[in-house]
Amino acid sequence: MEESITFSEVAKLVSGKLVRGEADASIVGVHTLAHAQQQHATFLANMKYKSDLLTTQAGLVFLSAKIEVPKDTSFAAMQVADPYVAFTLLQRYFHPLPRSSGIIHASAVIDETATVASHVQIDANVSIAKGVSIGSGSMIGAGCVLEEGVRIGNHCLIHPRVTLARDTQLGDRVIIQSGAVIGSDGFGFAWTGDEFLKIPQVGRVALEDDVEIGANTCIDRGAIEDTVIKAGAKLDNLIQVAHGVEIGYKTVIAGQAGIAGSTVIGNGCQMGAQSGVAGHLKLADGTIVGAKAGVIGNTKEPGMISGFPAVPHRQWLRASGMFDRLPEIWKKMRKLSDGEK
Amino acid sequence: MEESITFSEVAKLVSGKLVRGEADASIVGVHTLAHAQQQHATFLANMKYKSDLLTTQAGLVFLSAKIEVPKDTSFAAMQVADPYVAFTLLQRYFHPLPRSSGIIHASAVIDETATVASHVQIDANVSIAKGVSIGSGSMIGAGCVLEEGVRIGNHCLIHPRVTLARDTQLGDRVIIQSGAVIGSDGFGFAWTGDEFLKIPQVGRVALEDDVEIGANTCIDRGAIEDTVIKAGAKLDNLIQVAHGVEIGYKTVIAGQAGIAGSTVIGNGCQMGAQSGVAGHLKLADGTIVGAKAGVIGNTKEPGMISGFPAVPHRQWLRASGMFDRLPEIWKKMRKLSDGEK
Amino acid sequence: MEESITFSEVAKLVSGKLVRGEADASIVGVHTLAHAQQQHATFLANMKYKSDLLTTQAGLVFLSAKIEVPKDTSFAAMQVADPYVAFTLLQRYFHPLPRSSGIIHASAVIDETATVASHVQIDANVSIAKGVSIGSGSMIGAGCVLEEGVRIGNHCLIHPRVTLARDTQLGDRVIIQSGAVIGSDGFGFAWTGDEFLKIPQVGRVALEDDVEIGANTCIDRGAIEDTVIKAGAKLDNLIQVAHGVEIGYKTVIAGQAGIAGSTVIGNGCQMGAQSGVAGHLKLADGTIVGAKAGVIGNTKEPGMISGFPAVPHRQWLRASGMFDRLPEIWKKMRKLSDGEK
Repeated sequence: MEESITFSEVAKLVSGKLVRGEADASIVGVHTLAHAQQQHATFLANMKYKSDLLTTQAGLVFLSAKIEVPKDTSFAAMQVADPYVAFTLLQRYFHPLPRSSGIIHASAVIDETATVASHVQIDANVSIAKGVSIGSGSMIGAGCVLEEGVRIGNHCLIHPRVTLARDTQLGDRVIIQSGAVIGSDGFGFAWTGDEFLKIPQVGRVALEDDVEIGANTCIDRGAIEDTVIKAGAKLDNLIQVAHGVEIGYKTVIAGQAGIAGSTVIGNGCQMGAQSGVAGHLKLADGTIVGAKAGVIGNTKEPGMISGFPAVPHRQWLRASGMFDRLPEIWKKMRKLSDGEK
Repeated sequence: MEESITFSEVAKLVSGKLVRGEADASIVGVHTLAHAQQQHATFLANMKYKSDLLTTQAGLVFLSAKIEVPKDTSFAAMQVADPYVAFTLLQRYFHPLPRSSGIIHASAVIDETATVASHVQIDANVSIAKGVSIGSGSMIGAGCVLEEGVRIGNHCLIHPRVTLARDTQLGDRVIIQSGAVIGSDGFGFAWTGDEFLKIPQVGRVALEDDVEIGANTCIDRGAIEDTVIKAGAKLDNLIQVAHGVEIGYKTVIAGQAGIAGSTVIGNGCQMGAQSGVAGHLKLADGTIVGAKAGVIGNTKEPGMISGFPAVPHRQWLRASGMFDRLPEIWKKMRKLSDGEK
Repeated sequence: MEESITFSEVAKLVSGKLVRGEADASIVGVHTLAHAQQQHATFLANMKYKSDLLTTQAGLVFLSAKIEVPKDTSFAAMQVADPYVAFTLLQRYFHPLPRSSGIIHASAVIDETATVASHVQIDANVSIAKGVSIGSGSMIGAGCVLEEGVRIGNHCLIHPRVTLARDTQLGDRVIIQSGAVIGSDGFGFAWTGDEFLKIPQVGRVALEDDVEIGANTCIDRGAIEDTVIKAGAKLDNLIQVAHGVEIGYKTVIAGQAGIAGSTVIGNGCQMGAQSGVAGHLKLADGTIVGAKAGVIGNTKEPGMISGFPAVPHRQWLRASGMFDRLPEIWKKMRKLSDGEK
C-alpha cells in the first residue's frame, strides 16, 4: 500500500501555491518529468528539460513563478520559490532518512570500555575498540571498524565498511558512505639522505555536524594538528583530503577531487570533479574551483577559477576555446615572419 | 605436476594452424616473449616487442598470418587470426576462472529471509540482509556486505570486501573486484538558501550480465531512476559513476575515470584513464574518450576526442604539439606588432 | 603523566648542538611554530613560516646552521643538519610506531594451514585463508582479508579493512593503510570481435621491505609477470597501479596518481598528485612527474616533466604562463594578417 498526500497537504509541506488543479487530488510519489505518471508529482528545475513540460504525464508539477503553465496541458501546477527544494521536501516526505532500529547485532565485537547510547543500531561484524563512544540514534553499518577513542555524535549514519581510525571525532547527523577511510595516516616522511623516515601522524580528524562523506573517500589524520571538515560540508566519492587540511562550512566537493596537506578551503566553496588544490594554500570563502582545475596559489575573493595553473574562469574559457587554433596561429606566424630569419 | 597440452590440441583450442613444429610436442604454460622457456607458449600481439621474436626461448609462438616466421629461430609457430585471443584462450585453459566450492562459512551472517541457490560459496564474515537472493554457482568473498533486497544472478564472482547496497541488481556472470561500492547514495542536495538538504536517493544500481567492476570503484544509486551498466561493459579500478548514469553494452572504462550524473555513455565506447564526462550528456555509440580528457558536450558519432574541453583527437594532438611553442609565438608576435601600438 | 626529555638528551637523539638554552631544561612534546608552547619543541623547515620564529612560544627550536637565532626571542635553539629530520626523530621518540600486542582476537577466522609467527597481532573479524604465512611482530587490523598463499614478513602493519589477494608477497616492515586492495585482477581482456574475453591474471603482487601503501590505493596483480614495488617506495592514497608495473627503490607517489600496465618507474622517482603514466613505458631513475601531468613517452635521465603530454617542467611552466594570452595572440594575429586573405 503506497502512502498518498493531497495537493493541499503538499502545498503546506513545500510552501507552494496551487495555481491549477484540485486541492483534494493526491499523488503517491515523485518522478522525473519524462517518467512521471498521473499519480506522481514532478518538477522543472533545469531549463534543459523545459520542453518535457508539454508531454509530461505527471499529475502535479512544481514550477517557479517565472514559468507560465503551458496551454494544452492538463497537469495540476503548483508555484513554489524553488522547484528543486519543493521536490526534495516531497521526496523526503515519501522517503525519510533511515532511522536506527536500536538493534545491536550479536556478531558485533564491542570493547567493554565503549560507551553506546540508547537506541543505537550496530550491524553485523562491526568492530569497536577501547574507549569509543557512540551517541543516541546513530547507526553503524556492517563491517565498520571504529578504532580506539573514536567519538560519534547523535543520529549519525555510518554506512557499511567504513574505517574510523584512532581518535576520529564526529559531530551530530554526520553521514559517511561505504568504504570511506577517515583518519588514515597522512603522507609524511622525512628524507634522511638515505631513506624516507615515517613521521608519526599524531593529529586527528574532526567531522563537524551535518557533514557528509562519499564512498571510498579518504581523509588523512593530521601530522600534528587536526584535519577538520566544518559543519555542513559535503564531500562526494573518491576524494583525497590530506593531513592538516581544513574545509569550511557548507563547502561542497565533487568526486575524485584532491586537496594537498595543510591547505585551508574557505566557507561556502565549491570544488569540481577531478580538481586539485596544492598544499599550504588558502582559498577564500566562496571560491569555486572548476572541474579538473589545478590550483597552485591562494585566492583572495569569491569567484570561479579553472585550468591548470588555475586562472579566473572566463579567462580560461576564452583561452581554451582558442587552444585548437594553435597550429593555425603557428602557420600564420611563420608566414608573417618569413624573411625575418 | 603441471598439466600439459599438445600442439595439435592447442591448434584445436585456438583455431590455429601449426606452420612449423611437431603436432605432438607439448607445452605446460604461457609466458611473455621475453621470459618464456621451451615448455611455454607465447605470442606476438604488440609490434613493439617484434624483435623479441629473434631471441625468445618459447617452445611455441602464436603469430598472425601477416608475420613471417623469422629465419634462424627454432620455435614452433602457429598461425592464428588474433594472437592475443589465442593467448587468452590458452591461458584460460591452464587457469580457468574460479569456481564455487559450494561452501558457506559458519561465520557468515545470513538473514533467514535470504534466498541462496544451490552451490553458492559464501566466505567468512559476510553479512547478508533481508530479502537478498543469490543465484546458483555464485561466490561471495570474505567481508562482503549485501544490504536488503540485493539480487545476484548465477555464476557471479564478488571478491572480498565489496558493498552491494540496498536493492542492487546483478545479472549473471558479473565480476566485482575487492573494495568496490555499488549503490552508495548519489551526491544530491538542494540548497535552501541556508543549508544543503539531502535528497533521498531512491533509484537503484543494475549491473547486467557479464559486467566487470574494478577494485574500489564506486557506482552511485540513482536519485529517482536507476543507474544502469549494460551487459558486457568492463570498468577498471577507482572509477566514479554518479547517480542516474547509463553505460552502454560492451563499453570499457579505464582506471580513475569519472562520469557525472544522468549522463548516458553509448555502446562500444571507450574511456581513457583519468578522463571525465560532465553531467546530463549523451555520448554516441563508439565514442572514444582519450586519457585525462574532460568532455563537456554530447558526441553525435563514433570517433576519438581528447583534451579539456574535449575536441576531436587529431585536432588536440596537433594543438598540444604546439603548446610549448607559445612563448616563442608570443615573442615573435610582439616583434611583428612592434610599432603598431 | 607525560614523558619528558632534556635538551641534552634531545641533542644526542637528533645529533644537534644546543646554541642557546640550558642543557638540563626539558620538553614534553612537539608542535608547530604557531601552536607550540613552552613545553614543546618545534622546527623551521619551510621558509614560508620563517616569520613565525619571532612569535613562537616554543621552548626549543630546531634550526639549520644557515638560520641565525633572531634577537628579541628567548627560545632555546638547537642547530641541526636538517630540522625536519630532527623533528621527525623527536616525534618518533614521543610517538613510537605501533607495536604488536601479540593478541589474536577470538573472532578472527584463521585457516588451520596458516602459519602465524610469534607475537603477531590479529584483530577482530579478520579472515585468513589457506597457506597464509605471517612473520613475527606483524599486526593485522580488523576486517582484513588475506587470501590463499599470502606471505607477510616481520613487523608489518596492516591497517583495518585491507585486502591482500591470492599469493600477495610482503617483505618486512611494510605498512598498508586502511581500505587498500593489493592483488586485484589486472584490467585485461581480449576482444574477440564480439565480446571482451577475460584474461586470467596469474601474476602476483610483491611489496618489498619498508614499502608503504596509502588508503584505498589499488595495486593489480600481474597478468603473467608480477607487479613489483621495490624496497622503500611510498605510495599515497587512492593511487592506481596496473598489472605488471614495476616501481623502483625509494620512489614516492602522491595521491590519486595512476600508472598503466607494464610500465617501469625507476628508482628515486617522484610522481605528483593526480598525475598519470601511460602503459609500456620506462621512466629513468630520478624522474619527477609534476602534479596532474600525463606522461606518454619514456624518460632517459633524471629531471622534472609536467603537462599533458608531459614536457620538461620549465618549458611547461613558460608555456602555461602564456596560455591565457591566446585570445590576445589570436586578435593580434588577425590584425597583422589583415589584407592577406
